[in-house]
Amino acid sequence: MAAPTTFSGEAWAELRLADARDVPHIHSLIHQMAEFELLTDLFAATHELLASTLFPTPQPAPFTSFTALILDLSPSPASASADTVGSRRLDLSASSPLADPEAAAFPSPRGGGRVTAGFVICFPNYSTFLAKPGLYVEDIFVRAPWRRRGLGRMMLSAVAGRAAEIGMGRVEWCVLDWNQNAIDFYEGMGAEVFKQWRICRLTGAALDKYKGTGTGSQEEEDAGGKAQ
Amino acid sequence: MAAPTTFSGEAWAELRLADARDVPHIHSLIHQMAEFELLTDLFAATHELLASTLFPTPQPAPFTSFTALILDLSPSPASASADTVGSRRLDLSASSPLADPEAAAFPSPRGGGRVTAGFVICFPNYSTFLAKPGLYVEDIFVRAPWRRRGLGRMMLSAVAGRAAEIGMGRVEWCVLDWNQNAIDFYEGMGAEVFKQWRICRLTGAALDKYKGTGTGSQEEEDAGGKAQ
Repeated sequence: MAAPTTFSGEAWAELRLADARDVPHIHSLIHQMAEFELLTDLFAATHELLASTLFPTPQPAPFTSFTALILDLSPSPASASADTVGSRRLDLSASSPLADPEAAAFPSPRGGGRVTAGFVICFPNYSTFLAKPGLYVEDIFVRAPWRRRGLGRMMLSAVAGRAAEIGMGRVEWCVLDWNQNAIDFYEGMGAEVFKQWRICRLTGAALDKYKGTGTGSQEEEDAGGKAQ
Repeated sequence: MAAPTTFSGEAWAELRLADARDVPHIHSLIHQMAEFELLTDLFAATHELLASTLFPTPQPAPFTSFTALILDLSPSPASASADTVGSRRLDLSASSPLADPEAAAFPSPRGGGRVTAGFVICFPNYSTFLAKPGLYVEDIFVRAPWRRRGLGRMMLSAVAGRAAEIGMGRVEWCVLDWNQNAIDFYEGMGAEVFKQWRICRLTGAALDKYKGTGTGSQEEEDAGGKAQ
């Protein structure tokens, strides 16, 4: 059954663990996210890199390493599987049919008329004060036709719930300081937004210059500093 | 050989992979960091939690999961081992002997008169745009007598160098926005400091309420929202 390009009445959303068959859609969704953020110049992901970094052999247990989740929408109810992390019924009866013009490009590899509409990437982080792992949510993305229907909340709630259930002490993510709608939404979900912390990043040539710098005398390091 | 409480002339710093024998010192150092940050009310780490989360059996390869590093200072030169990540000779000849009154409480389990003076906790993160792992540095801490001698730079450089060598795309950490000295230092090392990102965190009761929320209909979720 091909994915429909319009949904009406009801739709069933499932957030599920991804596998290597989802790599092409994950790649396309990351590119859409880069376009949305006007950051396509930083986009360097390939199918091969995604497959080898997100779906290595053997695959670590979910949420113990890099973890990719897929949001599939189905025109008919589907029972939860072992891969299901969250689900939600969407009531579309009050609105005109939902048009998803890209649906033909995003058939879910799970079939059954499902269309892939979003993804989550998360991985464990660590709190030294708690001496416990937490979960960092790197990305939550929903394709445009499916936004503003509570799916972001479902995805973040489901991931947070799973993290809490496996004993993680925190769930963390980032937001832009000018995105007051998002800040209000996250605070409404119970999150604290830290105003004073800033993220520092070494990357590219600025990172590569540290190769081989692990050992050296004080004098060598000071000389190196002057040369930069 | 016991760790001396004063160092003069020269000292040799080694940043090395930690193991379970380092847990008591890691615990004490995290507590000192909590005191320094006036956050002892958040301190909940125990020897047992640190051992089970940082040194599980089997131990993953360094930098592929939570990774603890120890800074040892030695009054005599020591040759690098397979555990060495960074090293540095300190020239103390221009100053009066360095007093480390706590040295007796921090003998390194590696012996040889070494004293444990600091630690690093880091773990992999993930960039979707690069489709590559990076390294997140959660903590870098040096005990007070050993500060302002270039050891923080050695530790961060060594960790960044190792991350670059194993193909990671980024090294990231956080800094407080009012700590201009630290910001200047990190920018001098080549880091970009992101002004617009804010960290969001769900923890404690605010996180626990998401247990079991992965599935539900739109109506149930809306009702749940009203009850909060």
